[in-house]
Amino acid sequence: MTVNYPERRARVAEMLPAREVDAILVTSGVNVRYLTGLESSNAAVLIKADGSALLVTDNRYIEKTRGLDVAAVEASDVAARLAAPGIGIEAASMTVATFNRLSSLLESGPVPLEPLVELLRAVKDDDELELLRTACAISDQAFADVTGNIGPGVTERDLARLLEARMIELGADGPAFATIVAAGENGAIPHHAPSGRELRTGDLITIDFGACYQGYHADMTRTVALGGPADWQREIYDLVAEAQRAGSEALAPGATAKEVDAAARSVIEAAGHGGHFRHGLGHGVGLEIHEDPFLGPSRTGRLEDRVPVTVEPGVYLPDRGGVRIEDTLVTRTGGPELLTKTTKELLVL
Amino acid sequence: MTVNYPERRARVAEMLPAREVDAILVTSGVNVRYLTGLESSNAAVLIKADGSALLVTDNRYIEKTRGLDVAAVEASDVAARLAAPGIGIEAASMTVATFNRLSSLLESGPVPLEPLVELLRAVKDDDELELLRTACAISDQAFADVTGNIGPGVTERDLARLLEARMIELGADGPAFATIVAAGENGAIPHHAPSGRELRTGDLITIDFGACYQGYHADMTRTVALGGPADWQREIYDLVAEAQRAGSEALAPGATAKEVDAAARSVIEAAGHGGHFRHGLGHGVGLEIHEDPFLGPSRTGRLEDRVPVTVEPGVYLPDRGGVRIEDTLVTRTGGPELLTKTTKELLVL
Repeated sequence: MTVNYPERRARVAEMLPAREVDAILVTSGVNVRYLTGLESSNAAVLIKADGSALLVTDNRYIEKTRGLDVAAVEASDVAARLAAPGIGIEAASMTVATFNRLSSLLESGPVPLEPLVELLRAVKDDDELELLRTACAISDQAFADVTGNIGPGVTERDLARLLEARMIELGADGPAFATIVAAGENGAIPHHAPSGRELRTGDLITIDFGACYQGYHADMTRTVALGGPADWQREIYDLVAEAQRAGSEALAPGATAKEVDAAARSVIEAAGHGGHFRHGLGHGVGLEIHEDPFLGPSRTGRLEDRVPVTVEPGVYLPDRGGVRIEDTLVTRTGGPELLTKTTKELLVL
Repeated sequence: MTVNYPERRARVAEMLPAREVDAILVTSGVNVRYLTGLESSNAAVLIKADGSALLVTDNRYIEKTRGLDVAAVEASDVAARLAAPGIGIEAASMTVATFNRLSSLLESGPVPLEPLVELLRAVKDDDELELLRTACAISDQAFADVTGNIGPGVTERDLARLLEARMIELGADGPAFATIVAAGENGAIPHHAPSGRELRTGDLITIDFGACYQGYHADMTRTVALGGPADWQREIYDLVAEAQRAGSEALAPGATAKEVDAAARSVIEAAGHGGHFRHGLGHGVGLEIHEDPFLGPSRTGRLEDRVPVTVEPGVYLPDRGGVRIEDTLVTRTGGPELLTKTTKELLVL
């Protein structure tokens, strides 16, 4: 993969005049990786409006900057090393402590900026889409491979570990996030952490997981039934599946974040379950598991072409259980590209 | 495990008057977990000087606050929900954007505080030490189980994945951090990311890894030889092992961070390799893989009793290779407790 980092930095530089700064100090780890290729927990890159750039990291990572197409220097206090006049900073990720240290070095304070690199990152290039396809394919395969292990007596935690281990065997860097397995009544908790609760006949089981592959994050959810589903289980499953389909079909370049959310949410509301779907419809995925754009009733903005997002409606009935169905898809002019291809028919195991 | 969260919060409350604030808004995720038991990516807890506390999280996590011994309310903007006069904030983790939003809600701005909860977290209680012992035991066992797989033709990445998968099979939540496997010349890069480089006879191979168990992080490094070591390899191995021993022996309640670092570093400097050991000697471990206290030449502070830290000197020869040997140990009055028990004799495979 030959990522064109200079082009990415040039696009950042072009955005600076409108922000009324001469340079931006990028300190978010994923943003530094996106703009230079360096993976480090302590690095910053200064990009000036003229397009020039300087990368700083500490002695642990300086060897890794060899061969990158950006000038690099070593310093222990990486942000302070790049203090400059007329500098913008990433307010959403820089800490107050770092900001105050920078300020003390400058006559006029650094300028907190709204997310900027994140806007560029939302639209993926060919290489990024290929990595996401692989991350999603690994996730699909791992799910298929562990389906036979879903049965009475297996704990939520067992199943989560099996899935994560299988993804790694299939080539994942690791899980894209902490796997959720929520059985029976735990399915009412959208972010339930897998516990020692054993799976039982009669459970709906929500499995929310994904592989991270070369830094790119897949995200998918399937809800399966252990034994023939009760009427209420089948009813909310079909409802969520219909909402998921409607949300996916609304994905298009030019659609607003609100419109896509509403396409799915209105289905659930019409069935009287609006109060049981209390999170946003989805989010972007890429170098982070949650990134721009976010799809929800109070989100602003409009989708562009080549933006991978999740579509993940759910219905959660307190103390009874829940259903969530989630795909990762990419907006395309001809219609969205589905990356997570596991069936969304209700699997009865 | 019955963690006494109210006692932890009471200790925070006692520290507030000296900071001249009436309350502290804790927003760091691990600090919130430490003080309430809630695992969430979006939560905050306000602790007042009178010891009372209020936890806020969003609708994804609010179900998980049931059963906790702290009052909890739901809000989407968790920090803003707890804006209060005379409030201190965690400058080392709160972002500039959050700080500015809080400030806009208050007549007099929130007060950036130096790390406070982190100081409490450095000293572990019995339950925490037991979890760390388990995390380290899993790491030891996983290393033993994969030793047979270390041989010519296996890639760095293969070996890292095997280790991580094995730790999960043994009950780990997951790896405590991204495993480092650095063979031959890559061993000169302290934080080398595992690559497709195949192991070869004549390599020293540095393996830096650990298990995370119920949120607690183990950290260990062993360097092994593939085939009988060359003289220079044996020489730096013995040197690093001696430094590691000296550093471990210097661990004691009352010792300063500088003294412990110097005990190990002076061994390496005396051998003329001071310029080849350019990172700190170690760091605390617990709910984070890197936490207070940090051991290094410019670090301040004094160790207390019951503080788990790593001791991890290394010698890195550019373009040739390197050695690092690391244990996790706990300071105790009778002498340090070793948690990572794999032999530090040079393993020749």
